[in-house]
Amino acid sequence: MGEKKYDLVKQSQGLLSIDTPGQGLTEITKKVDQWVLRQGISIGLITVYIRHTSASLLIQENADPSVMQDLDDYFKKIVPEDPTLYSHTAEGPDDMPAHIKCALTETTLSIPVNKNCMVLGTWQGIFVFEHRARPHVRQIVLHLSGI
Amino acid sequence: MGEKKYDLVKQSQGLLSIDTPGQGLTEITKKVDQWVLRQGISIGLITVYIRHTSASLLIQENADPSVMQDLDDYFKKIVPEDPTLYSHTAEGPDDMPAHIKCALTETTLSIPVNKNCMVLGTWQGIFVFEHRARPHVRQIVLHLSGI
Amino acid sequence: MGEKKYDLVKQSQGLLSIDTPGQGLTEITKKVDQWVLRQGISIGLITVYIRHTSASLLIQENADPSVMQDLDDYFKKIVPEDPTLYSHTAEGPDDMPAHIKCALTETTLSIPVNKNCMVLGTWQGIFVFEHRARPHVRQIVLHLSGI
Repeated sequence: MGEKKYDLVKQSQGLLSIDTPGQGLTEITKKVDQWVLRQGISIGLITVYIRHTSASLLIQENADPSVMQDLDDYFKKIVPEDPTLYSHTAEGPDDMPAHIKCALTETTLSIPVNKNCMVLGTWQGIFVFEHRARPHVRQIVLHLSGI
Repeated sequence: MGEKKYDLVKQSQGLLSIDTPGQGLTEITKKVDQWVLRQGISIGLITVYIRHTSASLLIQENADPSVMQDLDDYFKKIVPEDPTLYSHTAEGPDDMPAHIKCALTETTLSIPVNKNCMVLGTWQGIFVFEHRARPHVRQIVLHLSGI
Repeated sequence: MGEKKYDLVKQSQGLLSIDTPGQGLTEITKKVDQWVLRQGISIGLITVYIRHTSASLLIQENADPSVMQDLDDYFKKIVPEDPTLYSHTAEGPDDMPAHIKCALTETTLSIPVNKNCMVLGTWQGIFVFEHRARPHVRQIVLHLSGI
């Protein structure tokens, strides 16, 4: 990649709506990749931002689906859906655990872009991590700056 | 929001000092919002950065105060203030747990800005998460780029 | 620091290769600092991005080495290397725990730059957190925008 300098940065902003099937990881790498390609910015930085407090973002291995299952199982284990543990229980047994899982993972991710693609590693994918039991539509804001 | 492209990005940088009353969450959303408004940048990206290793940042639900209490209780439970668990104990029983809580949450947050406002979801607020028992003054650097 | 506005943002992108000796924290603050200095951008924002799913990034205290040891011990305790806990075990007992530790920490960090230096607090350093038992070479992409 080397060291390169580029003048007069531009920016672009967009929105993705992602359907989640309930708890677990939904990969969005291709959708973000396609959006980046359409912006005509070859070198820059993209920020992926989720506008929710009961679903979050992760960059994780996207090769073996068992990784996604183990991740979901792990977070269920360290953040039990046991209403006796929490005072905020009015929105259901999965709501307060969802907020805690968001605190432990990410709401915003910034990824450099080079040659019109995110510089993700070979095994890296971007995922929406849904923490509520029921399906949801999640809003993701994309912000790209570069040249 | 749609897809929009904007040329010739500018930037602005500032500093917030936040008083915390000891362990727990202090909301700073309004202070960041007001700073963004003053910069005259309508569409862009703000980065909120905390210059400490015993207080961190979170984007969380700001509707029900019981969420903030449950979050604080959860982190106290998974990171016990028990000096027998740590070798770094010289700065008090709350110090090493504070560093671990910072590792589990965030030191930096980047949030897109649209129409002079951060694109926070309906229930999202930005919080300083103080991990030390005593009150502190925390320094937050704000960096905004956009047009 | 005050409030300052700067026009016509530029950007620069580079790559660091970091050798890790196996599990634990390797500080990279000086290497990132030196790269920032070479770019000739005095005020801006740097993003540090790791292209892996079994090593992550942390901003942590860099004064007392016992903090680094306690951090490593803590993550080993809450994410046990016990193959009976995971279904993804083909890549070794340290692989699935490595992915979980990445989910609990950071893959990307954005830090404001002022006067050609990152605005790190007095005790803050940037670390690569290696989660695999064996030494690895880790790729870090640096993206700097500013003036």
